[in-house]
Amino acid sequence: MNDNEKEPEAEESGRFAYTGLDPVLHSQNRIGILTALATHSDGLSFGDLARLCSLTDGNLSRHLDMLARSEASKPALVKITKSFQDRRPLTTVVLTSNGRKRFREYLTQLEKVLRDAAAQADAQAAKSKTRPGLAGA
Amino acid sequence: MNDNEKEPEAEESGRFAYTGLDPVLHSQNRIGILTALATHSDGLSFGDLARLCSLTDGNLSRHLDMLARSEASKPALVKITKSFQDRRPLTTVVLTSNGRKRFREYLTQLEKVLRDAAAQADAQAAKSKTRPGLAGA
Repeated sequence: MNDNEKEPEAEESGRFAYTGLDPVLHSQNRIGILTALATHSDGLSFGDLARLCSLTDGNLSRHLDMLARSEASKPALVKITKSFQDRRPLTTVVLTSNGRKRFREYLTQLEKVLRDAAAQADAQAAKSKTRPGLAGA
Repeated sequence: MNDNEKEPEAEESGRFAYTGLDPVLHSQNRIGILTALATHSDGLSFGDLARLCSLTDGNLSRHLDMLARSEASKPALVKITKSFQDRRPLTTVVLTSNGRKRFREYLTQLEKVLRDAAAQADAQAAKSKTRPGLAGA
């Protein structure tokens, strides 16, 4: 047994549980919304956000509700402000400091998944290199 | 308008849609199962896999069904083999080549999310640096 080929028994329980992948954030659409908002610190209008994330108004509303008002997202991850621009109603969405913090923690978990998967690729490469009969094949 | 502060209008629709985040793979538990299997090219026993991912037997079965038999995972992403070891039944799970390919594509999408979020952090840093009155603060 070498470092590249650990027995499963040597690995701790829950090694691949990734419990830190916050379910409020771990959704294809909400990842998009949060990345878009993190990219625009002054916030985005509801319309621009829907367009950038390819979401219908109804779908975006549903996701924003979850990020702003659900029990699991307290304190709120996004703040929604209604105002007027040229006498037309304007809804603006901005990431809260809690939203930025939770999103950063979530991204750290994604990095962990990528590191784990990359470590595996390295181990595999090392394994094939030392496998007899495959050198130079 | 400089490079660090693009107007939303300048960004293409769907810029943050992340449609490549394969819903069959994009689940906290299935990410764990696939990373565990990718780390063990000879496969893992059902028991070891459950332990490494902190899953109950029932939950692991349900996720493996989705990865091996659902319409959305054709050809199958994992292969399940039943055999005997010391006269006791042994279920072994291994990643198929299609599973490895789909998981790699999924990881590429995660990298894109992280790149997009990191680009934002850089832009923010540049922005604060050039903000008057905050130098050295």
